[in-house]
Amino acid sequence: MRLLPFRFDREEGVFWLLDQRRLPQEEVWVPVRTAKGMAEAIRTMVVRGAPAIGVSAAFGMVLAHLSGEDPEEADRLLRASRPTAVNLFHALDRLRPHWGSLEGTLEEAYALWREVEETEAAISRHGAEVLRGQVLTHCNTGPLATGGYGTALGAILEAHRRGLVRHVWVDETRPYLQGARLTAFELMKAGVPATLIADNMAGFLMARGQVDAVIVGVDRMALNGDFANKIGTYALAVLAHHHGIPFYAALPLSSVDPKLESGEGIPIEERPPEEVTHLRGLPIAPEGFPAYHPAFDVTPHRYLTGIVTEKGVLYPPFGEALRRALGLS
Amino acid sequence: MRLLPFRFDREEGVFWLLDQRRLPQEEVWVPVRTAKGMAEAIRTMVVRGAPAIGVSAAFGMVLAHLSGEDPEEADRLLRASRPTAVNLFHALDRLRPHWGSLEGTLEEAYALWREVEETEAAISRHGAEVLRGQVLTHCNTGPLATGGYGTALGAILEAHRRGLVRHVWVDETRPYLQGARLTAFELMKAGVPATLIADNMAGFLMARGQVDAVIVGVDRMALNGDFANKIGTYALAVLAHHHGIPFYAALPLSSVDPKLESGEGIPIEERPPEEVTHLRGLPIAPEGFPAYHPAFDVTPHRYLTGIVTEKGVLYPPFGEALRRALGLS
Repeated sequence: MRLLPFRFDREEGVFWLLDQRRLPQEEVWVPVRTAKGMAEAIRTMVVRGAPAIGVSAAFGMVLAHLSGEDPEEADRLLRASRPTAVNLFHALDRLRPHWGSLEGTLEEAYALWREVEETEAAISRHGAEVLRGQVLTHCNTGPLATGGYGTALGAILEAHRRGLVRHVWVDETRPYLQGARLTAFELMKAGVPATLIADNMAGFLMARGQVDAVIVGVDRMALNGDFANKIGTYALAVLAHHHGIPFYAALPLSSVDPKLESGEGIPIEERPPEEVTHLRGLPIAPEGFPAYHPAFDVTPHRYLTGIVTEKGVLYPPFGEALRRALGLS
Repeated sequence: MRLLPFRFDREEGVFWLLDQRRLPQEEVWVPVRTAKGMAEAIRTMVVRGAPAIGVSAAFGMVLAHLSGEDPEEADRLLRASRPTAVNLFHALDRLRPHWGSLEGTLEEAYALWREVEETEAAISRHGAEVLRGQVLTHCNTGPLATGGYGTALGAILEAHRRGLVRHVWVDETRPYLQGARLTAFELMKAGVPATLIADNMAGFLMARGQVDAVIVGVDRMALNGDFANKIGTYALAVLAHHHGIPFYAALPLSSVDPKLESGEGIPIEERPPEEVTHLRGLPIAPEGFPAYHPAFDVTPHRYLTGIVTEKGVLYPPFGEALRRALGLS
């Protein structure tokens, strides 16, 4: 049922990646045979989503073994492929003590993948308990982004399986259209009734009583529950709050940064303006017109109804609940 | 300075239309020589925007005279070209008593055009008085949409000329991208510093204190100030309200429907889902995935700071103020 972003063929020594740049129009599987090839695939976004990148990098070290690449050089190439991806570094740090043997490297890579799956299965179960009726989501947070069960979308899929969620509103998620391209694709594959909307329609649907809950993923969360996520999340949170609609963020506890006290410390990555002024190379604005492209925004914790983690759904006061879940108090 | 959507060459008997479907990539002027040709141009959206369509239809009757078309047939064709455009019917109703002479028809068409200009010059002046700093707008409400000075964008342009507005945030306005294509084009031509954003970025800019006021146009307003406008307007209004940012609607008083007591009576036009799932013919979602496309939403008057009309800026209680401005009390 689950559409995964990769599969490993041990016999042939090939890690197959589903090319996410060509979804949903084409399902093309790309064979990767070396760590160098994996670094290139990560850099060019054949594979995307923080957990999926972590697992891919781990298998990149397996490929280094199989293809006889120097492990130091393989590690360096993989780290440079996406310099801001924390999961990538964590995965490579974990693999380092196992470089000595192929069996050890392979075992640790599988262990990492299994942990992603177990964590997300728990997130999906806990999240399913708080979702009902018609749910709205933003960006892409399903198996394609993680290699596991997904976070926010994992919870939605599980709630639909249990008959609790009957319909999903999919924010297209400009400018990259992860919702239109990937979330829509995953919901269609899973047979979940769903409808695509432009991001600016969500507020009006809420006003008309057509949204029972909103659930989104998290890029990075501070210890007080403030969190960075795909641009547009903040506006959704304010709109849900205004209409009295429950608003949840779903994440593995590993996405909480224990060094961050609040969301004020989270820097906002600005991406090229061309990603706003062009769509697949097609200009949609006058030549040379300035555009602004913050890739993320920060949502203060006061707009959150609950935080869905692998240890259960946390409720306010979030600072206390998060510290307890992380074993910090 | 103003870029108008049309110009009339009386000597040649040609009404030239700037083809708005090809903006901003190409500036192509289309010659129209008959009422039949004008009806076709309106139907295929060479010209768009309610006031601009009204003036174009009036000149369509001038062309009928010049080209020897039967006026009854010309009138029928023009009315059928955009069956929901109220301005179109008003314009043709006004022209009917003048069918007898070319001079009379031409005079009335010019009178209609002049009234659009005078009304919008007044709206722009009044609107400019309430705008400051950085202003955000949605959709396209400039000279291109009206043939005059514009409504919301007219006020912005005037406020910039007076040195009151220094920068404009342009909502791209999915799914049709009127903001990215047309508002951006008009601001660029006018030399106003402006930046394009995806619609879902507006809330975050407000939270960071980068928006001093929001001003939008109006498709249709009820007597209590509730109004229908391009989808996304409602969410902007709620977000502005939440952040304590002034929110204005600009319109000619002719856009107030005296038969509508409140916005609840305004039907929402649903347009084809393909306009959401495709962009200039390019699919952005999985083949066959359902989409929802309400073309407008309704914003309750409680979110409005003021209503900018040709008779000045109206303030709450809007019901009373609108009745007084319309001469109904």
